[in-house]
Amino acid sequence: MAKGITTREQNYSQWYIDIVLKSEMADYSPVKGCMVIRPTGYGIWENIQKHLDRMFKETGHQNAYFPMFIPESFLTKEAEHVEGFAPECAVVTHAGGKELEEPLVVRPTSETMIWAMYKNWINSYRDLPILINQWANVCRWEMRTRLFLRTTEFLWQEGHTAHATEEEAIAETEQMVHIYQKFAEEYMAMPVMVGTKTEQEKFAGAVKTLSIEAMLQDGKALQAGTSHYLGQNFAKAFDVKFQNQNKEQEYVYASSWGVSTRLIGGMIMSHSDDNGLVIPPKLASLPVVFVPIWRSDEEMELVLKNADEMTQGWDKLFFKIDDRDNVKPGRKFNEWELKGIPIRIEIGPRDCENKEVVVVRRDTGEKVTMPMEGLLPKLEALLDDIQDNLLANAQKRMDENTHIADDFKEYKKAVKTGGFYKIHWCGENSCEDYIQERSKSTIRCIPYNGEEEEGECIVCHKPSKRRVIAAQSY
Amino acid sequence: MAKGITTREQNYSQWYIDIVLKSEMADYSPVKGCMVIRPTGYGIWENIQKHLDRMFKETGHQNAYFPMFIPESFLTKEAEHVEGFAPECAVVTHAGGKELEEPLVVRPTSETMIWAMYKNWINSYRDLPILINQWANVCRWEMRTRLFLRTTEFLWQEGHTAHATEEEAIAETEQMVHIYQKFAEEYMAMPVMVGTKTEQEKFAGAVKTLSIEAMLQDGKALQAGTSHYLGQNFAKAFDVKFQNQNKEQEYVYASSWGVSTRLIGGMIMSHSDDNGLVIPPKLASLPVVFVPIWRSDEEMELVLKNADEMTQGWDKLFFKIDDRDNVKPGRKFNEWELKGIPIRIEIGPRDCENKEVVVVRRDTGEKVTMPMEGLLPKLEALLDDIQDNLLANAQKRMDENTHIADDFKEYKKAVKTGGFYKIHWCGENSCEDYIQERSKSTIRCIPYNGEEEEGECIVCHKPSKRRVIAAQSY
Repeated sequence: MAKGITTREQNYSQWYIDIVLKSEMADYSPVKGCMVIRPTGYGIWENIQKHLDRMFKETGHQNAYFPMFIPESFLTKEAEHVEGFAPECAVVTHAGGKELEEPLVVRPTSETMIWAMYKNWINSYRDLPILINQWANVCRWEMRTRLFLRTTEFLWQEGHTAHATEEEAIAETEQMVHIYQKFAEEYMAMPVMVGTKTEQEKFAGAVKTLSIEAMLQDGKALQAGTSHYLGQNFAKAFDVKFQNQNKEQEYVYASSWGVSTRLIGGMIMSHSDDNGLVIPPKLASLPVVFVPIWRSDEEMELVLKNADEMTQGWDKLFFKIDDRDNVKPGRKFNEWELKGIPIRIEIGPRDCENKEVVVVRRDTGEKVTMPMEGLLPKLEALLDDIQDNLLANAQKRMDENTHIADDFKEYKKAVKTGGFYKIHWCGENSCEDYIQERSKSTIRCIPYNGEEEEGECIVCHKPSKRRVIAAQSY
Repeated sequence: MAKGITTREQNYSQWYIDIVLKSEMADYSPVKGCMVIRPTGYGIWENIQKHLDRMFKETGHQNAYFPMFIPESFLTKEAEHVEGFAPECAVVTHAGGKELEEPLVVRPTSETMIWAMYKNWINSYRDLPILINQWANVCRWEMRTRLFLRTTEFLWQEGHTAHATEEEAIAETEQMVHIYQKFAEEYMAMPVMVGTKTEQEKFAGAVKTLSIEAMLQDGKALQAGTSHYLGQNFAKAFDVKFQNQNKEQEYVYASSWGVSTRLIGGMIMSHSDDNGLVIPPKLASLPVVFVPIWRSDEEMELVLKNADEMTQGWDKLFFKIDDRDNVKPGRKFNEWELKGIPIRIEIGPRDCENKEVVVVRRDTGEKVTMPMEGLLPKLEALLDDIQDNLLANAQKRMDENTHIADDFKEYKKAVKTGGFYKIHWCGENSCEDYIQERSKSTIRCIPYNGEEEEGECIVCHKPSKRRVIAAQSY
């Protein structure tokens, strides 16, 4: 247990806050619900951006930027959309010293602004598809906030695509949720359940919402990314038609999809321990840190010289030699452990004599002595191993904590302890509401490609054709 | 002259608007003064970000993110700052369906928020320096806007550094303006004048402001980047002290510096012509486009096969083969010319027989036949040549249009035709005001490392020790 960090067993929520603040990932700001993302945290976001952006571009998307202010009247054009978002908006009523004729909302999401622009850009099927993504800040005025997981302002990406056919728009929606799944698993080492949200839980304005749901260490679910098939809803709201190949006017089909800085909260709650952060190597801004150990100036010179020589030609962003001489090695160990750096390398005078170093992996704490010669490929292999191990652990946790439940009383009791529960549900809103009210848990998704299975709704016992995933959530 | 583009001679302002809109760099939005940056324009911004971000990181800076909302009272803590920025702020008065206790302004710049946070992070000289940069959107409610050059919302980066000594903070301020200069010249092919702003033109809250000033094709100046030495002004406003090495409490010294999407406007007005955009190769998202030419299906197969074979192993982001079969080659030429792609390659059936292609450079329009074999290094060299040529042209323009002026009447007449004028100025606000009122031009900067030269103020004829740069500006 690290100094100043509450253990998970003592208080899981406080543990999370301690980790975020002490590792300097983020800080509270003077504006209620808004956070400051400090360099340690922002470095993770930069890596998330880098990899996702590449995946988006490889699938033909381009980035653009739309205004953060949206005329209030735009929201009202799509009936469900305004109902979902208007209560959460921050509203600019004055600007440049004057009251505005029409108030502007700070974007909670950009469908309305973007479809107002698409109206000008789309005339013919030749203008389609439009595959645009935006990296931006958005604002949703939340009552209860939590660092990274739910903040009033957050950073995200929002893709907004326009298509000539329903099939193409649905294929895009599915493609993007699977890109999110791939990213979560391969880069964040965070396995997810892919599925469809219920009618009541879908995005305000969507025909269908797909999501990825992660299971965090306390067994709660985190909706970590969503991809919406919007049908022609926004095209109708903003009168966006195109001439199809048969020279007929038709409304355009749409998708939108997004992930946010919430992912960082998911990463922290997936892997970290009572000693601090654990960062998956593929998201680490700094994969390797050297902590040289010395007791005299001669020893200092010796170990630093050896560390310098060993790392000749290495990528400067791959490692750092922590040569601060006003901080003791033990304190450095704790600091880097707290900050979740995947590999720590200890190098002292005797190591220099033996031409070896002590390599410590953050995930297991395991120490191995390795020869200095040929170290780089061994470290790269170790980083891969750490990445794999984190994913395997998270997968194991998910598997072990995913249960079948058929009795509502038992379910209600069990779900409080965390975990995913596969339950039968008839599809009625009233039964979904009942689950939420009685058990403080929700239906997270209807699993994608889920097997059909005849059964009875856990609430009303009417027939059900497949199991859904229910859990407590963030 | 391209279809639908006003020539520069006809109407320079309209030419600029035509270029921006027709090349799909940007579009007007439904919110007054806010623009939409379309993929073509955003690709340029991504390249600007990529290169500048690397230069920032190489000089030890890290990225972070601070809230976009700032409590209104924060602005008032620094007297000059509030006077400069309060009139331009957009104000959020309502959020989450309620009136806020204290209104929030949408950041016009983030000194106040960041120094409110630095107060929590700085205790000792050991916590210094802090070298943080932020990529973000900001809002300044402008009355008269112009695409890219002056918009209500814009994208920028803002560096905010904290130091233990005045010397270090000044050195940082100077380092950053020189990074901007280097970036403008090496990447944007846009030579700039580096200098100090006058007391009246400096940043609201700064001790001293350095800027880079570019000369655009109409001879007007564009302030393209600024770096401010803030002294202890914000440290005093937010009570940020540190214990120095002598264990004394001292206020922290600061710098801030920024460039914005305005740079894209500067790039367009530096290089483009009556046929459309001209993009410096180092900022081009797409350096090379192939336009295959065919008249029959057999010819199509032949030229596409040759184009594919030639480009085997090339970086996919380096080139594109425009194989649209519903658009004629001539129209493709115009489109890519309008979009400013540095190199166009024409490849027809006879070229395939001769194993050669026709290479057309965008800057001069010059056509050269090159053998298919060994083409890539030749294209790379040509791109370098285009980059150099654009810089040389812009430098020539700046040199030819920088004049000495000693008589105010003559200056007043001359400055209307554009160009930079080296004039003597006594340093008094009243003479600076006189220049602005009578000639609609301003003192752009006091050149950095400018030579001392005895002279008389162009307005009051009192002694002056050096010449300053005056010009009309955007």
